[in-house]
Amino acid sequence: MAKVVVVFHSGYGHTQRLAQSVAAGANAELLAIDADGNLSDAAWEALAAADAIVFGSPTYMGSVSWQFKKFADASSKPWYTQAWKDKLFGGFTASANMNGDKHSTLHYFMTLAMQHGGIWAGTGINYNNTKASQRSDLNYLASSAGPMAQTPGDSGADEMNAGDLETGRLFGERMATLAAKFKA
Amino acid sequence: MAKVVVVFHSGYGHTQRLAQSVAAGANAELLAIDADGNLSDAAWEALAAADAIVFGSPTYMGSVSWQFKKFADASSKPWYTQAWKDKLFGGFTASANMNGDKHSTLHYFMTLAMQHGGIWAGTGINYNNTKASQRSDLNYLASSAGPMAQTPGDSGADEMNAGDLETGRLFGERMATLAAKFKA
Amino acid sequence: MAKVVVVFHSGYGHTQRLAQSVAAGANAELLAIDADGNLSDAAWEALAAADAIVFGSPTYMGSVSWQFKKFADASSKPWYTQAWKDKLFGGFTASANMNGDKHSTLHYFMTLAMQHGGIWAGTGINYNNTKASQRSDLNYLASSAGPMAQTPGDSGADEMNAGDLETGRLFGERMATLAAKFKA
Amino acid sequence: MAKVVVVFHSGYGHTQRLAQSVAAGANAELLAIDADGNLSDAAWEALAAADAIVFGSPTYMGSVSWQFKKFADASSKPWYTQAWKDKLFGGFTASANMNGDKHSTLHYFMTLAMQHGGIWAGTGINYNNTKASQRSDLNYLASSAGPMAQTPGDSGADEMNAGDLETGRLFGERMATLAAKFKA
Repeated sequence: MAKVVVVFHSGYGHTQRLAQSVAAGANAELLAIDADGNLSDAAWEALAAADAIVFGSPTYMGSVSWQFKKFADASSKPWYTQAWKDKLFGGFTASANMNGDKHSTLHYFMTLAMQHGGIWAGTGINYNNTKASQRSDLNYLASSAGPMAQTPGDSGADEMNAGDLETGRLFGERMATLAAKFKA
Repeated sequence: MAKVVVVFHSGYGHTQRLAQSVAAGANAELLAIDADGNLSDAAWEALAAADAIVFGSPTYMGSVSWQFKKFADASSKPWYTQAWKDKLFGGFTASANMNGDKHSTLHYFMTLAMQHGGIWAGTGINYNNTKASQRSDLNYLASSAGPMAQTPGDSGADEMNAGDLETGRLFGERMATLAAKFKA
Repeated sequence: MAKVVVVFHSGYGHTQRLAQSVAAGANAELLAIDADGNLSDAAWEALAAADAIVFGSPTYMGSVSWQFKKFADASSKPWYTQAWKDKLFGGFTASANMNGDKHSTLHYFMTLAMQHGGIWAGTGINYNNTKASQRSDLNYLASSAGPMAQTPGDSGADEMNAGDLETGRLFGERMATLAAKFKA
Repeated sequence: MAKVVVVFHSGYGHTQRLAQSVAAGANAELLAIDADGNLSDAAWEALAAADAIVFGSPTYMGSVSWQFKKFADASSKPWYTQAWKDKLFGGFTASANMNGDKHSTLHYFMTLAMQHGGIWAGTGINYNNTKASQRSDLNYLASSAGPMAQTPGDSGADEMNAGDLETGRLFGERMATLAAKFKA
């Protein structure tokens, strides 16, 4: 079995809840970046030991939160020796808006994964919006690079969309399956 | 008064209808790229004479349609002499899906505008999704780089969302206002 | 052994030569998109049968050539049934300029691969420019998402940079190795 | 005359030197984001009063430094009221590598400017690499979205490329000219 970790920052709890769904699907360890953008030594060791690394961040002002970026900048240390080369990577994001430039966040994750010499896997759940579509459908937001969750700005993490969370869980399963296949 | 043109390709009529809304707001001339990706000589002359150029394309497989790209490639001729330098540019896109990588299309438009030495203006309508949000709200999709329209895959252009179309019209007004200000 | 195909469009021969290097490294079949943006039925069958698909295109006006985009749009047929899901994908590009928005082309390839439910692998050759760097170094252009080749606008394909071509060849090897590992 | 400000973060002095060149061309005020990602109250007031805002950041791990991102996240306050709407925006970046995903940084700047309801202007210096090209040429790196500077990883800010710096200065002039024209 492959070891999957989910390294994420959450500002108001929504990204954390999505991270929990992904981790449930992937049987993954959760590594939380704190409010100062820092990660424990144990978390860095878990990253080093992982077969697959999943990034999670809210989309703030069109990209990852600064706390996530501080983690990304600190990852220049393993980058320098390409210590994470050939690991599997993926990512997810949450914000208040339907679109709200979440695509920009996911493409940043991909850029970061590529600098680390990694391999990227996306959502894996295709979707075509039709008249019959429901907001609670799997991958209703139709994102292919990674799961997106959208929660109205005046709603707490406990009010997140069930379809968005289930999309995260299935993506987690996909990451675990692919990582295991790749490890074999 | 500034001269605004809207150069667009439409596959099934949705992008055309959004183009018409933008053109109505901007009092703009519509220049349609045909099904073979070609544009008339008169249209190229209108582009050369314009103060502002607005790009429009459906999002197909994650970016502009090939017909729009054929137009973009043909614009290497004015690019070579930077004939479109300092014009104002903007753009819009339509697709069946809520997200569906429409951000990728808009950022391609921006890349193209920058290669032409242009200046880029976005939607100009901020938006925060809340519980009270309605699909018919202005800029419900919360796109800042340019208007996005979303129409279910089994709906015709006559069934497009009124809020998406009005967002296009107001964006057209903005383009005309900015182009006039810049020209003065 | 995994089956790798390289599907590419070349305008003036530079992308073709880079495609040949990649194919040499990957022991891959070359599938050329013609000047009208079309591909033979046999090529579509080779794509369907492949374990790994590598995209190649020049960067024209900030993204793939329209011919490549026509192929991408035509790939909506396998996309619709997610027939290419879980294949390995990669890509490369060539242009006359040092930067010249080649990153935009590679990110478009990634977007396309994600829509197909694929897995993406990048260059796999890290690089740090120093005073001692030579233009002929491996991955001198320091691209992580996929190989980039740069050839002055007044130079033919026979004058391409040896380091750029060797980067392509090693990337081809990487694609073959990863595809085999993933297939096992 | 228009008021231009350059808000930037610099890690090792290279981005600062490029910021100084841009500011010299634009007759702009320099606003330095500190090592903790903070900006003085006076700097926020200068941003509020500016006609044009130019962003500057090194490219670290494929995007802006976390300190710049902390500033961007803090700009959600003026964003909320769209206080910076219709200002002119531009941006520049510096890194050790020829390509090194600097395009990703510039497109993040564009995303941020669009969220603020701004108007974006790029480098304004077209370039075609030929055999006769020199590293010291204006816009040798051929970036259209904004100036890029590249300095080998083992070179200090005092060893930056003269062409890169002059590109920054001319871009500054362009920003001042466009801002004045737009203000009139």
